Parts: sequence; structure tokens; C-alpha cells
Amino acid sequence: MSQAERPKVAVIGLGSMGFGMASSLQRKGFEVTGCDVAADAVERLVRQGGEGAKTPAEAAKGAGIVVSVVLNAAQTETILFGQNGVAETLARDAVFISSATMDPDFARKLARQLEPTGRHYLDAPISGGAQRAAQGELTILASGSAAAFAKARPALDAMAAKLYELGDAPGLGAAFKMVNQLLAGVHIVAASEAMAFAARQGLDLRKVYDVITASAGNSWMFENRMKQVLEGDYKPRSAVEIFVKDLGIVQDMARSARFSAPLASAALQMFLAAAGSGMGRDDDASVARLYGRISGVALPGEPKKD
Amino acid sequence: MSQAERPKVAVIGLGSMGFGMASSLQRKGFEVTGCDVAADAVERLVRQGGEGAKTPAEAAKGAGIVVSVVLNAAQTETILFGQNGVAETLARDAVFISSATMDPDFARKLARQLEPTGRHYLDAPISGGAQRAAQGELTILASGSAAAFAKARPALDAMAAKLYELGDAPGLGAAFKMVNQLLAGVHIVAASEAMAFAARQGLDLRKVYDVITASAGNSWMFENRMKQVLEGDYKPRSAVEIFVKDLGIVQDMARSARFSAPLASAALQMFLAAAGSGMGRDDDASVARLYGRISGVALPGEPKKD
Repeated sequence: MSQAERPKVAVIGLGSMGFGMASSLQRKGFEVTGCDVAADAVERLVRQGGEGAKTPAEAAKGAGIVVSVVLNAAQTETILFGQNGVAETLARDAVFISSATMDPDFARKLARQLEPTGRHYLDAPISGGAQRAAQGELTILASGSAAAFAKARPALDAMAAKLYELGDAPGLGAAFKMVNQLLAGVHIVAASEAMAFAARQGLDLRKVYDVITASAGNSWMFENRMKQVLEGDYKPRSAVEIFVKDLGIVQDMARSARFSAPLASAALQMFLAAAGSGMGRDDDASVARLYGRISGVALPGEPKKD
Repeated sequence: MSQAERPKVAVIGLGSMGFGMASSLQRKGFEVTGCDVAADAVERLVRQGGEGAKTPAEAAKGAGIVVSVVLNAAQTETILFGQNGVAETLARDAVFISSATMDPDFARKLARQLEPTGRHYLDAPISGGAQRAAQGELTILASGSAAAFAKARPALDAMAAKLYELGDAPGLGAAFKMVNQLLAGVHIVAASEAMAFAARQGLDLRKVYDVITASAGNSWMFENRMKQVLEGDYKPRSAVEIFVKDLGIVQDMARSARFSAPLASAALQMFLAAAGSGMGRDDDASVARLYGRISGVALPGEPKKD
């Protein structure tokens, strides 16, 4: 694609994910305008050759593609339809790519509101973490109209190693993401429960890690998060509050669908207890610390009881 | 090892695991005597060159190694110390290898009862399924004295692809196995909950399988069991009742240790409900069918509601 054909891209939300995605787009030759409530994030993007905007409306002006990388549904709605929102300036036939994890019904509602005005909505939750965002190697779970995909594709190709095209209507991407979050959240709690259970029996936790990661009890989350627990490292990569939010969405969806989800529900309680006891902004592996504290065992790096 | 040096082996319990293990031992040149309450299993072993015994005592006579592959702690105790049990005839310095999944305290009790009589006890739970048992490629989680390991090693080498030596006292092998069973049981229920949740939203379940197995929500159990759910195949490889037993042991251990295990506890309830609704002898993936039935969705192979 020549420079002339390459649409301008606005990235709204320059946190650890959004900044990495903006950088990946720049590396592939896109002109990127960034917008964030934190001025230093915008300045950092400008220093590496991007443009800065003060509002979503300003960022979206002249852009063919807007990538929204904010925390949740409410923030997405605000940057799209709030004062100085994207919808005020976005050109006809441009596409809005929404990355936040949200209830599929809410994704459908936003799309129903945007699309009659001639702009396209791509429901495109992401997974993969900050490092893969910076490398342009995210997994994107996308759904939307053929037109939305066509407009968004150059940016998607720059940001994703794996793009799932999950259907022709917004909401499907969000639904697949929620299924993944249900499992990911339950598996973090299960890993924490098992690790503390092992510690309670006095087992060598490094051996537990070796045995489990080679056995039928393994999960992606056990392998990833329990490595941090062995090091006593709870610096936030992804915070406890993220799963308070995501399993909360699962619970709301399940309740309204009359779907009994006992594991997701029990896992949510443990994330709530971790947040309630002061670890909400720490890494989600902190659920293991919670189990340690309520069972009287000291995991690595945690203070021993007298 | 020459034929003369190779100890005779008795295998007590010729179910799908035990028969495979006996066959692996024969293939490596061991003389194997089998014993089972099912006469046809013994006859099958005799047809492929083994010997048959009517009681554990008879099987253990002259054996240097006894491999016990029964269902649970109670059966293990009976074949060891019950009437016509192994302990009546087992030679001094021979080793008893116990494979059943059980409470570590119970494994320690059996060892404490056997070892003062001059025989060795190896706590050696297995994992890997019938096919890997038949190929001599099990994973064995073993603990016991150096003498017990030395005596057992030729048989362990014939039966296992991977042997974990987890410590010098019986009970440790059992404890590691219980940590694995906690995770495996929770993951089967989590996979079932997520798959039915996806079905309830009308998602394409094959796409769900593809997305999840490539994402952070994956687990060994999701990948393995949900393949069967996609086929509507609930023929038992490992039955619901196995996890009713194993998560029951976890619950008993946790309760006596004052260890709160909300996920293991919720998962046990779902295995109990699956068994209670008539699926106890079906494959443990049947938990997915249970979720389908209580949420009004028809998984593949299940009858659609009118």
C-alpha cells in the first residue's frame, strides 16, 4: 500500500496496550494521531513522530480508521458519543474499531447507534498483553460488516499476528472474548487455589510447577501466572480489577440469560476478596496471595507468620 | 538386565490401566502374574503369556515387585492387608507399588503398616490414560525410600515415559497427584461451563474451540474434553464418578486442613449433579451435557427441545 492510499489512523487511549498498538501502526508506515487523558502518553507518541490531539473529536478528524483502546464499555461510549466525541467529526465511510472488553449487547447497541450515520463499527476485542501489542502481534477477535472489515484491514494487519473473523455482525467478537475471559479468570483462581493447597501440604512449589505444567492439570494461566507466584512478583501486568470487571460482565450476562455459572461466580468472589483486601491494582496473580493469607501459608516473597 | 536378574512382577487390578501396564511389563521381558475379580481379564493376560492368580496373596508369592492398580484407598488396603492379601505372602525386601489416587495421609498409613515387616512401599500415582498405559508411557508421581525406588525401578522404567521422584517418604506422590486432580477437575467443569455459555449465546462451537485453544483461556482439559463435546461423544474414557471420588478427597483434605477451596468445591457439586442425574458412568465431559440441560441449550448430539 502506498503512502497516499494508507488511511490516517487515530488511536484513542494510549495505555500499555494502546501505546503499543499505535507504535506498531507507526512502524508499518501509518500516520498516527493519539489521544489520552494522560498528557505524557500523548507527548511520548509525538516524540516518536506521531501527532497529538486534545479530544477524541480532534483525533478522529480526517482519520479513515479510529482505534479505541480504553478500559470498558462506558469509556467507549463516552469517546464515541460524548462531548467532543469521535462521532462529531468522523468522516462518512470511516471505521471505528472498538477493542475494549464489553457485554456483546452493549457492542451491538454502539454499532446500532453509529452505523445509520454512515460510519462503520468493528467489534474487535484484543488479547495478548502489552508486549505483543508493541510488537504488532496481538490476537484480535473481530466481527462486523464486510465494509467495516475492508476499511479496518490495513490497521488490523499492522496490529495483529492472528485475526479471527467471527461473523458479519458486531457483538460476536465481544461474545467470544467473554467466553475466553470466563475461562481465563476461573483458571487464575484455580491455579492460585491449587498452588496454595500445595503449599499448605508443605510441597516444594517449584516441583509442583514442573509436574503440573507437564500434566493434565495444566492451563495457559497456570503456566503464566504461577511463574510469577514462584518469584513472589506481583507487579501488575494485568490487575485484579480487570477480572473484577470481566467476570462481573460474565455474571451479568449469565444472570440475564438464566445461565447458572457456578465456577465463574466463585472465581469472581475471589477476585473481589483480593481487591477488597487491598490488592485491586496489583497483578491478578495476587489471588494466590489471598489464598495464602486465608489459609495461613506463606507463599514465596510473602511474610511468614510468627 | 538379564532374565535371571529381572524380578517377577504381580499386577493386581487388570482394568484398562492395569492391563496396559501388565502388557508393557511383558513387552519388556518381565514374567507377569495378574489378579483381578474379573476372570476374563486374567484369562486375557494368560493368553498373551502371563500367569493368572486367584488372590492377591497368590499373585504376590515369589514376586519381587507388586503393582497395585485398583480404584481407591479402600481397595488398596484390602488387597494389601485383607484376607488373602499381598502382605500374607510378599517376600522380605520386595516392593509394593501403589498406583491408586488417595489421600496422602492414607498412603502414609499403609506404608507405616507395611514397612516394619521388611517390605517396601512406593507411593506412585499414575496419570496418562489407558492408551499410554498400554504403550509404557505413563507419567508416574512417585515418593518413597531409596530402597523402595531401587527395588521398583525396573518396573517403573517399563511402565513410564516420565517418572517424577518427589521425595523420600510415601504421601508426597499422593499429594502431588491431588494437586493435579484439583486442577483437572476444576478445568473440566470450567470448560463445560464456558462451552455451554457459548452455546447459550448462539456461537459456532467449532470456532469457539479454535479460538480458545489458541488463547489465554486454554487448558489441557479444555483442549482434550471439548473435542469430545463437539462430537457429542460421551463414551467413557474416564468417568464422572472418578472426579466425584477425587474432588471428594480434595474436599476432605481441605476441610481437615482448614483450607477454603471454593472452586474445587463448586466443581465437585457439578460432578455430583452429573452423577445424580444419571451420567455417573459416562465420560467426565458429560458435565457439559449437564450445563446444556440446566440452561436449555442443545449441545452437539443432544436432543433439541421442542
